[in-house]
Amino acid sequence: MHDILTRTGVLAKSTEVAFENRETLRDLGLYTVNLMSAPGAGKTTLLEQTIAALRDELRIGVIEGDMHTRLDADRIERYGVPVVQVNTGGSCHLDAHQVHEALHHLPLTELDLLFIENVGNLVCPAEFDLGEHDRVMLLSVTEGHDKPRKYPVMFHTAQALLLTKLDLLPHVDFDAEAAEREAQGLNIDLTVLRLSCRSGEGMAGWYDWLRRRRARVAALAAARRS
Amino acid sequence: MHDILTRTGVLAKSTEVAFENRETLRDLGLYTVNLMSAPGAGKTTLLEQTIAALRDELRIGVIEGDMHTRLDADRIERYGVPVVQVNTGGSCHLDAHQVHEALHHLPLTELDLLFIENVGNLVCPAEFDLGEHDRVMLLSVTEGHDKPRKYPVMFHTAQALLLTKLDLLPHVDFDAEAAEREAQGLNIDLTVLRLSCRSGEGMAGWYDWLRRRRARVAALAAARRS
Repeated sequence: MHDILTRTGVLAKSTEVAFENRETLRDLGLYTVNLMSAPGAGKTTLLEQTIAALRDELRIGVIEGDMHTRLDADRIERYGVPVVQVNTGGSCHLDAHQVHEALHHLPLTELDLLFIENVGNLVCPAEFDLGEHDRVMLLSVTEGHDKPRKYPVMFHTAQALLLTKLDLLPHVDFDAEAAEREAQGLNIDLTVLRLSCRSGEGMAGWYDWLRRRRARVAALAAARRS
Repeated sequence: MHDILTRTGVLAKSTEVAFENRETLRDLGLYTVNLMSAPGAGKTTLLEQTIAALRDELRIGVIEGDMHTRLDADRIERYGVPVVQVNTGGSCHLDAHQVHEALHHLPLTELDLLFIENVGNLVCPAEFDLGEHDRVMLLSVTEGHDKPRKYPVMFHTAQALLLTKLDLLPHVDFDAEAAEREAQGLNIDLTVLRLSCRSGEGMAGWYDWLRRRRARVAALAAARRS
């Protein structure tokens, strides 16, 4: 054994718990998305619109990560879906232990789709596997197209990148093609979707992507059980 | 900042070097595969056959990882392709620093496809990003279909799983469907290919997969340059 893993007992243990979470979610066929972005990129607004659009076809639950408040959980609760608030107590990311605990407080067998809204941060959340199926990161067009170069780990480990606040594109200096090219240079399989929660542009594509990924997880779980 | 990353300075630095490697390979459009498996699953034999099959259409280079010997590099050298041996000095995995150094010893601008053969080990190599485009892991049918449960991180982080030594399937108790199901339960995007270097079964599918992935990387690099 090498000495790095021995020294980082905390990280190793977190990896093990992430895989326990992954097994639980896999056996349930409960498709789980870890939503990550910088503060203010629009994670909670995206969640509100997505729940409103899909709640008649999919049973949705939410784990809300925040350092100290429950403001986001209060927003989500109005949509009548189960939500658990995790306060990280100053830590700038969710970890697998916190998600493990939160799973115990959700009606897992009655859910089809679980969102985990991570703490707003482009760095540390990317380093922590929570056991999710997909990582979806948001980059708003107001943040600048240099972000893939500055925060490569998150772009490298995400399955989908949502370029949000597309309605503001005429008013900012953001090269969406460059952002997409840089991001896919770090991750050749990255799906990039452009959307605006305000105008509704691109939202149908996001819902279709979620439906397809959710169906894949449900089909794999059904094949395991048969 | 949280305290885990502060404590694991070694790991953090390795991540940074991995992204330097990734940028280098991306800018060159040099498609790079990190080959990982337990000892004896057939990585070097797969490499020999792949080089023989593709060397007329793709310019191939190899980084060989081994704890102490250069036996594998000697085998590869016979095929007339550039190869660099990295001896890890007892460490059970390659790291990004070693790959960085090895890249300096290869004619990178004259290559289309770079293989990194990792140290034979199902655990630690999975924890170390080298900057590769794809992780390909081999699981021979003689090893047993319980491996995805026992070594989940490697299955979770690979893009493709090769079930090797398929010619031995009639002689062993290996449930290929179960192995595939377990592996995809950890990684819903995992491509699973079944093949035998001895009989040649499935090899064409592996070559096609490599061609497609390589073409994707080359196309992204061309788009960046234009």
